[in-house]
Amino acid sequence: MKFTIFRDILLDALNHVSKGLSTKTPMPVLSGIKIEVSREKIILTTTNREISVQIVLDTSDQVTVYEEGSCIVPGKYFIEIIKKVEGKTVDFTLFEENTIKILSDRSNFTLIALEKSNFPDVSFESMGTPIVIKSTLLRQIIKQTAFAAGTSEARVVLTGVCFELKGDKLEVVATDSYRLSKKVTQLPEPHQPIQINIPSKALEELNKILESKDTDVELFIISNKALFKIQNISFMTRLIEGNFPDTNSLFPNTHIVEIEFNKNDLLATIDRTQVFTGNDVSSTIKMVLNRDKTVHVFSSSSEIGRVVDEIFPLKVQGIDQFQVAFSARYFLEALRAFESQEVTMKLTGELKPFLITGKNDDNLVQLILPVRTF
Amino acid sequence: MKFTIFRDILLDALNHVSKGLSTKTPMPVLSGIKIEVSREKIILTTTNREISVQIVLDTSDQVTVYEEGSCIVPGKYFIEIIKKVEGKTVDFTLFEENTIKILSDRSNFTLIALEKSNFPDVSFESMGTPIVIKSTLLRQIIKQTAFAAGTSEARVVLTGVCFELKGDKLEVVATDSYRLSKKVTQLPEPHQPIQINIPSKALEELNKILESKDTDVELFIISNKALFKIQNISFMTRLIEGNFPDTNSLFPNTHIVEIEFNKNDLLATIDRTQVFTGNDVSSTIKMVLNRDKTVHVFSSSSEIGRVVDEIFPLKVQGIDQFQVAFSARYFLEALRAFESQEVTMKLTGELKPFLITGKNDDNLVQLILPVRTF
Repeated sequence: MKFTIFRDILLDALNHVSKGLSTKTPMPVLSGIKIEVSREKIILTTTNREISVQIVLDTSDQVTVYEEGSCIVPGKYFIEIIKKVEGKTVDFTLFEENTIKILSDRSNFTLIALEKSNFPDVSFESMGTPIVIKSTLLRQIIKQTAFAAGTSEARVVLTGVCFELKGDKLEVVATDSYRLSKKVTQLPEPHQPIQINIPSKALEELNKILESKDTDVELFIISNKALFKIQNISFMTRLIEGNFPDTNSLFPNTHIVEIEFNKNDLLATIDRTQVFTGNDVSSTIKMVLNRDKTVHVFSSSSEIGRVVDEIFPLKVQGIDQFQVAFSARYFLEALRAFESQEVTMKLTGELKPFLITGKNDDNLVQLILPVRTF
Repeated sequence: MKFTIFRDILLDALNHVSKGLSTKTPMPVLSGIKIEVSREKIILTTTNREISVQIVLDTSDQVTVYEEGSCIVPGKYFIEIIKKVEGKTVDFTLFEENTIKILSDRSNFTLIALEKSNFPDVSFESMGTPIVIKSTLLRQIIKQTAFAAGTSEARVVLTGVCFELKGDKLEVVATDSYRLSKKVTQLPEPHQPIQINIPSKALEELNKILESKDTDVELFIISNKALFKIQNISFMTRLIEGNFPDTNSLFPNTHIVEIEFNKNDLLATIDRTQVFTGNDVSSTIKMVLNRDKTVHVFSSSSEIGRVVDEIFPLKVQGIDQFQVAFSARYFLEALRAFESQEVTMKLTGELKPFLITGKNDDNLVQLILPVRTF
């Protein structure tokens, strides 16, 4: 097995497949990258059982194959080497089944290959009709929802992000049961109804790959897996089993008051207010709408002190006095999900879930459960 | 006690005095900033017993005092508040001995003051004739030497940087007994001979203050303390007691070979060579000078693999074959201390200390003890 490849092409491919590397695993082979070389193409594959990534590089003037073959190269070290070499091209040769030679410019590396027979078989074969989404849109959907998913293994179903197809609408919901993010997207064509629950951590890895891409993404659902095809990259993740809760009933139908803010002013106010309590989920702040249409935000810590900050809303509609308390962190994370400069809080009662919407984010809504304070 | 101050002036002062704050201490008062207000000036003081810092702000159009007094404000929270407020000025008021009110723009903070009586008395009074050094030169001296000091409490004397005055020469030496950095500086006028040992950690904190300054620094030695005066800032550190070892005998008088390199090429080569062994002090690399005037650098890990990198020296003088092994990290740190683009290794024997000098760093020499490899 022997090939020569442009260093930048290889490094780019390695950055993508690295998302499927296992860092701590009882199976060392899962920390490796499988390299398969034929006359027509070079295939790089990683899998950590949760996420599997494959890239296919066609042989061309940037890749030259001298001898076919395959091996498993230690992922971390191989990536470090390719990052550090200074040659324009890299020569890769496998000797005697398990000795890898990597040459570039005046550098010469010898690496011991991992045992090939233990590498799991992973099929990236696509089946059925894909759901097609623009990469930029998918990236936005993930950025605006995945943060709201749960992290507790006690309710595994909430550690995923629910993607539900209803005709030509894609509804994406994530919730940890204290806050929820929902984004609805119009697809170019209708699809069979389907609901899948994708691990939020896998979506965050996928988003790193999407960052550098502006293209169509094809999503295939294959039994208990989701397979994303992005040009020559295949990204596959297992799905979370179990019923994602029906969250529609959580949304209040009416509001007794709506308050519109400049988002950045509100972010700065909330950020100042948590100066004594820190960024902990449990640090609560209280927001009070006064009759004079000012809003005061309060926070206190019995040992350190307290804060009162004042902010002028852009608009107030509904009753003229109100108060609500909530987790500062949840509120900040919800605000940051919006692209709009104007955001509106829609409140129904002191202990009822309230909504946040954005002037130019038609299809995004954030829901937060207030905290009881006495 | 009540005053108004420009926020940016206060924040700058707080950044400097924060270097003397204690983060974890059995004495909570040491995590506080002492604020003393009189008609003429505001004095901010911190001390963690090792380092003490004081800033004196004259009252002016940027500081207005309404009522004199003093208190200890919780350092971390006070700094966080002043970072986050958006007003151009900050109003500071002390009520009832221990309640601090801070107002800025539309933000209103109440902080509980720390118990004043426990704050140690620290005198920053200068005595005797100072040694005067330009702040930019002192910063360079610290940057080029302090990294080589020891970290082990088993030999406390080596955790300091030795400053020795010999007439109009200032010799600064740091060593952890495996490597050494020595910088000699010509002072504008001669001084009484003196040798002091300053904790390297204190010097690194001092360097953060010096970063933003271009001025003369006055150094006073007062019994077991060093006091640096930088404009309105006083930075004091305790000195390390005990005899700093005489290091002059370590320097070889002759060399059997001198090899000059481009520093950045050498840095990149060494960095590549440690790809399998990491940045650990104990990871050793071997350098071999070949008869054809190329230099090869080797490193290996029995479990992962090995590296051979080649570099062309700019010049070789002396014998035509040589080899030496050393800690990659010590070598990289020594190289980075030079400002020159050309550096020269001066070697005496496989197991004898070798020197590194820089073409334009006349007064700086780095010494490294080789490692035995078999």
